[in-house]
Amino acid sequence: MTTWDIRDSYLGIGQWEREIEHLLDHADDDRVVWNVDDTDTREYDAIFLGGGAAGRFGSAFLRARGGRQLIIERWPFLGGSCPHNACVPHHLFSEVAAELMLARTFSGRFWFPDMDGRITSLKEIVDLFRAGRVAPHAIMNFQSKEQLDLEYVLNAEGTIVGPHTVEVAGRRFTTRKLVLAMGSRPRPFDVPGADLPGVFDYETLVEDLDYEPGDTVVVVGGSKTAVEYGSFFSATGRRTIMLVRDRPLKIVPDGETRRYALDRMREQGVEIVEGAEVTEVVGGPTGHVSTVRYLAPDGAHSVDTDFVFLGLGELPNTEVAAETLGIKLDAKGSAIVNPQMQTSVPDVYAIGDMLGAPMEMFKARKSGMYASRHIMGEDVHYVYDEYPDFLHTHYEVTWFGLGEEQARETHDAVITIKMPPDTEHGLDVALPATDRTMLYAFAKPHMSGFQKLVVDATTRRVLGAHHVGYGAKDAFQYLFELHRRGGITVDQLAEMDELFLNPTHFIQLSRLRAGAADLRDL
Amino acid sequence: MTTWDIRDSYLGIGQWEREIEHLLDHADDDRVVWNVDDTDTREYDAIFLGGGAAGRFGSAFLRARGGRQLIIERWPFLGGSCPHNACVPHHLFSEVAAELMLARTFSGRFWFPDMDGRITSLKEIVDLFRAGRVAPHAIMNFQSKEQLDLEYVLNAEGTIVGPHTVEVAGRRFTTRKLVLAMGSRPRPFDVPGADLPGVFDYETLVEDLDYEPGDTVVVVGGSKTAVEYGSFFSATGRRTIMLVRDRPLKIVPDGETRRYALDRMREQGVEIVEGAEVTEVVGGPTGHVSTVRYLAPDGAHSVDTDFVFLGLGELPNTEVAAETLGIKLDAKGSAIVNPQMQTSVPDVYAIGDMLGAPMEMFKARKSGMYASRHIMGEDVHYVYDEYPDFLHTHYEVTWFGLGEEQARETHDAVITIKMPPDTEHGLDVALPATDRTMLYAFAKPHMSGFQKLVVDATTRRVLGAHHVGYGAKDAFQYLFELHRRGGITVDQLAEMDELFLNPTHFIQLSRLRAGAADLRDL
Repeated sequence: MTTWDIRDSYLGIGQWEREIEHLLDHADDDRVVWNVDDTDTREYDAIFLGGGAAGRFGSAFLRARGGRQLIIERWPFLGGSCPHNACVPHHLFSEVAAELMLARTFSGRFWFPDMDGRITSLKEIVDLFRAGRVAPHAIMNFQSKEQLDLEYVLNAEGTIVGPHTVEVAGRRFTTRKLVLAMGSRPRPFDVPGADLPGVFDYETLVEDLDYEPGDTVVVVGGSKTAVEYGSFFSATGRRTIMLVRDRPLKIVPDGETRRYALDRMREQGVEIVEGAEVTEVVGGPTGHVSTVRYLAPDGAHSVDTDFVFLGLGELPNTEVAAETLGIKLDAKGSAIVNPQMQTSVPDVYAIGDMLGAPMEMFKARKSGMYASRHIMGEDVHYVYDEYPDFLHTHYEVTWFGLGEEQARETHDAVITIKMPPDTEHGLDVALPATDRTMLYAFAKPHMSGFQKLVVDATTRRVLGAHHVGYGAKDAFQYLFELHRRGGITVDQLAEMDELFLNPTHFIQLSRLRAGAADLRDL
Repeated sequence: MTTWDIRDSYLGIGQWEREIEHLLDHADDDRVVWNVDDTDTREYDAIFLGGGAAGRFGSAFLRARGGRQLIIERWPFLGGSCPHNACVPHHLFSEVAAELMLARTFSGRFWFPDMDGRITSLKEIVDLFRAGRVAPHAIMNFQSKEQLDLEYVLNAEGTIVGPHTVEVAGRRFTTRKLVLAMGSRPRPFDVPGADLPGVFDYETLVEDLDYEPGDTVVVVGGSKTAVEYGSFFSATGRRTIMLVRDRPLKIVPDGETRRYALDRMREQGVEIVEGAEVTEVVGGPTGHVSTVRYLAPDGAHSVDTDFVFLGLGELPNTEVAAETLGIKLDAKGSAIVNPQMQTSVPDVYAIGDMLGAPMEMFKARKSGMYASRHIMGEDVHYVYDEYPDFLHTHYEVTWFGLGEEQARETHDAVITIKMPPDTEHGLDVALPATDRTMLYAFAKPHMSGFQKLVVDATTRRVLGAHHVGYGAKDAFQYLFELHRRGGITVDQLAEMDELFLNPTHFIQLSRLRAGAADLRDL
């Protein structure tokens, strides 16, 4: 292990790309990336164990506040698993799914190629990601050093010595506070054969795929990850069977929205088996997976396949900290923290995926920010009990607040404002329509999306917003903020300035009803 | 002229589609669509002359308030020119431009066809629009009658008799207030040959195109419409020459954002000639356009082409009202109104495009709503001096507030937060990246978009926000509302919940700086 001291060097983004690539590709290159300010004699205010979204944003905030921080990260880059083998590849794959659905829908029309019966390469897209992923890594390393002035040690495992002491690459660092930001990993699958070659999760898919999968894919799971990857596999033209223990997409709160998303998946050919329990993954003569056996409500089945994807969620990486420091975990293995992000051990904080669900970027980054604020003496309180959320099918599905069913259970007078409207024509109506659903709107109107506002007719406030389509995800961040600031009413929506054709038609639809003292469905 | 009385009938969306199609296609079908409630003996509170966005939304609001209204519209459908031959087709064409840019960028790779040298059909896309446009019309007629309970007379020209009297299809209607909502039309071009076959504007393109244009297109103009259509024509593979009298896209307030958008257009092959003045459009032997002659700063030129597009903006349809009622117009021919939408003639209001720039949907609909509120006795005040805005190149370009240049002129301490960052690597950085720019980010990073926040470092408030990419247009509606409510600060952005990978990276980028007492560029 050698120390590569970069403290006094300027490394551009291109240079970082080359270095990270080398460090990742060459196991014998064991350089520890050393960006420590030895001229600063202050004690560290915080050492962040882990330089993913949580640790990096926590560090940036603490540093900006004038504190001293150090990130210790086992990978040679900052940013964590998300851009390496988790949420960023899923975005590339979901874009491919959306584009392939478009190409298949218009197969042979306009400029689209004939997609009939065509299976497109899965490996090529995975390879594209793998070849390009160091670029975002490089930006994070660059930005963190040159623009955010952070201290970090990369490509070396940190060892927890105690609440104030961490060792890395043979050197001990002491700190006022220790912040655990060690992330999560794919939940393993406890059935025979789950470790066979050809069985992947979101990490190993990116790391290990070295062959072109055949024409049948089995996906285990029915939550976000399973649906996102299943939609991608299906879009490549492969028969895709999703084995869901319970019901798929339970996370989507509005029933009609969930049905729209699932119906479109099925229409694209995804086979969803509810109540399915995998009993065995069977290997063929070469040891590669060849068959999946499962029990469904209608009996035992088996599917021949050379490609199985496990989309079973994530587990927090909390074991080491629990053992070495004794931080308390909940029943699911997540670190227990208070609203100041403090664990049960004095001076030890935990942030990000270690805290369990939702393992989302906003929580990772904000929990890091809040830990740092508290460490720097601020009186803060962070809970994440309500937030906007999304997932990808072949579409973007976005929501916040209550689904219609739950709203009706908890409120006396609920109305909905939606598109397409409730008529005898069902979905076969050319609205909604907007950027990236115009071809659908004009040629396959039922594919052009679904959207709904759930409104309390008494207070006239939006209780929930739900969208399937494209281009609304970004909006939900700001719309939710308006909702969080004391609620957003139909009347306030009516006053906003829509950018026609807007992906959410919420503003104009609300305006059509806002004149009425008694709100009605639309 | 016969009266088709539909007052007591239920017409479904499908039925409306068939009827509208017939009325549009058969000049001899002169039925007047008659939806008048003769059982209501009250005087009309307002008659809306024109049932486009302004008249329809104004009517809906007035009716919801309990007032009585009547729309008189010369077309057999409500919704106006936008879904018929103006802004809706442009959205379809812009989606095609975006998809074709993607297909050309990845020509022959993955599932994309070989696009090298390939010219795709322009007429096919126009035909797709033309065949499908009655569907939205049908929804508007249906919704307005069955869901919004509006009264209307369609497919007949209304005649202004006086401020309280309108005649249509031989019947006189009297009203307490008259609301003019007569829209706008393409600005004509005053050069020899501008009326030749083969010279189109946004209306005639949709109405009249009956041949496949050749391999060269000339676009006259450099504003929104010209750029939107020019990008579409170019994306089909045709040589596209834009003749711009001044500079293109002056409407985009931030210089760097404007350059990014224009540079990508040029990269896609659009030729933009600044300071160009068309001198003559020349017809060939058949009388069809064959050549365009123009003067540029470097001298006289001519281009052979069979297709010319005039993107010169719009003129308000105010002449008739000025003549018959004497309403005052400004120097540009727009109706002059006060913040209650009242013209210079008592009891006569004007709304929508008749008021001049910006001829945008939000203003049309909101001016209608405000006129109705005032007519129904509310004390209202509507000005539209600040609003979010957008246009399409091959991308979506969205903005509000000040560009960096103007911010620096008017504020002491301005910082910017942007992506890609200012480094020696320029645009060749894999961020921003998000839904629908992931393939670019991984293979052609300079194409993956540009975004910038302009911030007053003293108040920490956002002064302007600028975005080129996809999926941010909807967000700007709500982000602008936060801005309008007393300003949105970097610190408030840092508190929001991003939906990663969000099209606007504003939240997370702000969070990286928000910890600092002294804001700096990022």
